[in-house]
Amino acid sequence: MTSIGILGGGQLARMMALAGAPLGLRFLVLDSVADACAGQFAPMVVGDYTDEAALAEFASRIDIATFDFENVPAQSAQWLTDRVPVFPNPRALALTQDRLAEKTLFRELGIPVPEFADVADRAALTAAVKTIGVPCILKTRRLGYDGKGQFRLRDDRPETLDAAWAALGAQADRTGLILEAFVPFEAEASVVAVRGRDGEFRAWPLTRNWHVDGVLSASLAPAMFPADIETLAVAHARTLAEALDYVGVFALELFVRDGKLMANEIAPRVHNSGHWTIEGAETSQFQNHLRAILGLPLGSTRMVGHASMLNWIGALPDAKPVLAEAGGHWHDYGKESRAGRKVGHATLREDSAQALADALQRVGVAMRREEQVAPVIEALKR
Amino acid sequence: MTSIGILGGGQLARMMALAGAPLGLRFLVLDSVADACAGQFAPMVVGDYTDEAALAEFASRIDIATFDFENVPAQSAQWLTDRVPVFPNPRALALTQDRLAEKTLFRELGIPVPEFADVADRAALTAAVKTIGVPCILKTRRLGYDGKGQFRLRDDRPETLDAAWAALGAQADRTGLILEAFVPFEAEASVVAVRGRDGEFRAWPLTRNWHVDGVLSASLAPAMFPADIETLAVAHARTLAEALDYVGVFALELFVRDGKLMANEIAPRVHNSGHWTIEGAETSQFQNHLRAILGLPLGSTRMVGHASMLNWIGALPDAKPVLAEAGGHWHDYGKESRAGRKVGHATLREDSAQALADALQRVGVAMRREEQVAPVIEALKR
Repeated sequence: MTSIGILGGGQLARMMALAGAPLGLRFLVLDSVADACAGQFAPMVVGDYTDEAALAEFASRIDIATFDFENVPAQSAQWLTDRVPVFPNPRALALTQDRLAEKTLFRELGIPVPEFADVADRAALTAAVKTIGVPCILKTRRLGYDGKGQFRLRDDRPETLDAAWAALGAQADRTGLILEAFVPFEAEASVVAVRGRDGEFRAWPLTRNWHVDGVLSASLAPAMFPADIETLAVAHARTLAEALDYVGVFALELFVRDGKLMANEIAPRVHNSGHWTIEGAETSQFQNHLRAILGLPLGSTRMVGHASMLNWIGALPDAKPVLAEAGGHWHDYGKESRAGRKVGHATLREDSAQALADALQRVGVAMRREEQVAPVIEALKR
Repeated sequence: MTSIGILGGGQLARMMALAGAPLGLRFLVLDSVADACAGQFAPMVVGDYTDEAALAEFASRIDIATFDFENVPAQSAQWLTDRVPVFPNPRALALTQDRLAEKTLFRELGIPVPEFADVADRAALTAAVKTIGVPCILKTRRLGYDGKGQFRLRDDRPETLDAAWAALGAQADRTGLILEAFVPFEAEASVVAVRGRDGEFRAWPLTRNWHVDGVLSASLAPAMFPADIETLAVAHARTLAEALDYVGVFALELFVRDGKLMANEIAPRVHNSGHWTIEGAETSQFQNHLRAILGLPLGSTRMVGHASMLNWIGALPDAKPVLAEAGGHWHDYGKESRAGRKVGHATLREDSAQALADALQRVGVAMRREEQVAPVIEALKR
C-alpha cells in the first residue's frame, strides 16, 4: 500500500487524505502542531519542517511526499528530495515562494503581469514608486499569504513611503521586498489545473473569486467569463506548468481588467478556489493531485452543474441552512475558532445558474451572509 | 466536537468516516481485528462486541453509536443503549437479525413476501417442503449474509431433504432455520432509504442489483423499472421504516417477478447496493446516515446522472481502465486479498443511459470483466 507524506497538516492535507482513501492510499502528515486538523484522519509526525529528526522519521515511513503548505523551507524540501520522490519539485516550490522570481518568470513566458520592481532599500522604494506610479502595493518577496505582509500606497507623498517602509522595511533583508502596481481589476479569477508525471495537462473550468481583506470569501464556477478569456487563462496555466515541469495540482490567480488578463500569482498546491471541485466536478482537485503525483490516469475535470463556494473565516456559522439546501454541502475542517482562520466552507451545486443564484439567495438570508453572497448572485444574473 | 462510535470496522465504517469528516465529526471504531480497514482513517478500540471492557472504553469515548455490521449481539447493543444513544434502535437490529421475525413483519404490514415456514426440526422440514413446494431454500434464521448459511432444494426427494438437513440441521437449535419458497425472479432491486429522528423519510432512486453466488456483483441506478414499481417499492420501505421507528439508512431488498414486487430482506445499515450514491447522488448514503442519526437536515437523494457500481470480490483488479474513464471512480477498501472478500468497488457515472452502457462496455473489455458488465448493459439498452 502506497503511503503519501504530506508536509503540513491543515485542511488541504485533511481533504487530500479523505480524497485519497478511495484510491487505497495511506497518509502520514508532518506538522509542528500536534492537533493539526488533518491528524483527525491521518497519522502524524509532530515536528518542525526544519527538524531533521522529524523529517527523517517522516521520510522513512512514506513512499512519496507532497505539500499542503508552500512555505516549507527549500532546504527541507531538498533534503526530502534526496530520500523520496517529492512533487511538486522543489524548484517550482522555491520559485513560487519568491514573488520577484515568479513575476519575472511570468514576464519571460509572455504572461502579462502588473508592473513590478525589486525594492532592496528605502531609496529603491522611492525610485520604484516613481517608475510604477500610485496606487501600488509594497509586499514581502517571500512568506506572504492571504494579504499578510502587504502595504498599499495610495499616494506618493514621502510620509506615505515612510509609513510603508516603517511597516515592511525591516523585511527587506530577511524576505526581500517587491513593489507592484495596483491593478483596479473588475474581477479575480483562478485556473485550477493539474499536470501529470507524463506531462498530461488538465484544467477545471475557470473559477471566479471574491476576496475580502485579502482572504478568499467566495468562488463561482464556471466563472461565466467570455470563452476567449477562459481559453487564454488556461493556456497561461499550461505554459507555466510546462516551464516548471510541474507535477500535481496548482492554481494560477489572475486579474481581469478591460476584458484582459493579468497574472497575479501561482499557488503550487491544491487551492481554496478549487474546493468546489469536491462536489462540482467529476474529479476533485484533491484526488487529481494524488493521481498526478502517483502517475495514475488523471480524472475528468468536467463540471457537474454550477457551483459556488463560500468560505468560513474565524468561526463556523450554523450549518443547517446549507444542509437544508438540496445542493448544499458542508465542510467543517475540525478546527478551533480563531480570528482570521479558515475553519470551513460550504459548496452549493445546482443544475443551472439561475437555480444556483436562488440557492445562494436563500442561504445568504438564512445565514445573514447577504454581503458574502451578493457579488456571486450578481455575477450569475449577468 | 461530536464523536461517532461505529461497531464494526469494515468498508462501511471506513466510507462512513470519510463521508462524515466534512461534517466536522470524529469517529471511533470498535472491531475485534486490529487491522480492520476503517482503522486506517479512524482511531480504534480493538475488542470483541461481547467484551464488556472494550465496550465500556468505546462507550466512554463517544457521543452516539451506530453499526457497520448488523450481527452485533442484541445484548451488546442493549448494553450500549443504556449508556449512549444508539441508532438504529436495537429492536430494529434484532428484528432484521431474524429472518422469521422479519418476514412475519413484512406479511403483517401487507408487503408481499415469498412463502416461508419455521423449521424447528427434521420433521418440520418435511412438512414445510410439502406446503411450500420446490424449488425452495433452507436458510439459517440468524447470522446468514451474502448467501452464507443457505441450501437450495431443487426437488423434494428424501435424499435432498437429508442433504439439506446435513448441511444446516445442526443450526436449528443455535440460529433457527427457515424454509423459503424459491422465487424465479426476473430482477432484483433495492430501495436504499433514510429516515431522520423527526420521522422525515427519503429514498434514493430504486437500484437494480445483480448477484453472483449470493454476493452483489453489480448495481444500476436509476433501475429503469416502470414508475409504479418504484413508487410501490419506496412505499414498502417507508412502511417498514415507520413500523420499526427506524433512524438512519437501510436497504430493502426486493424481487421483481411478472411486474410485481416481493420483499426479500432488510439490511439495517448503509448497504452495498447504495455505494453508487457517493458519486451518483447529491448526498451519499453514508453522509445521510450520519445526518439522520444526528438529527441534522437530510440531504437530497436526487441522482446526478446514471450510475453503475461494480463490486470487486477477492482481489482488486487493475484500477487503470476505471481511472481512465471520464466518469470512473475507484474505491479500494485498503484490505488484504482473500477469497470471497469484498475488497473494493468502482462506480461509473454518466449523463445518459447510453453513455453509461458505452462506458461499461469499454471497462468490461479492458478489465476482462465482460460477464460482470453484460447484464447491466442489457438492462440499460432496453
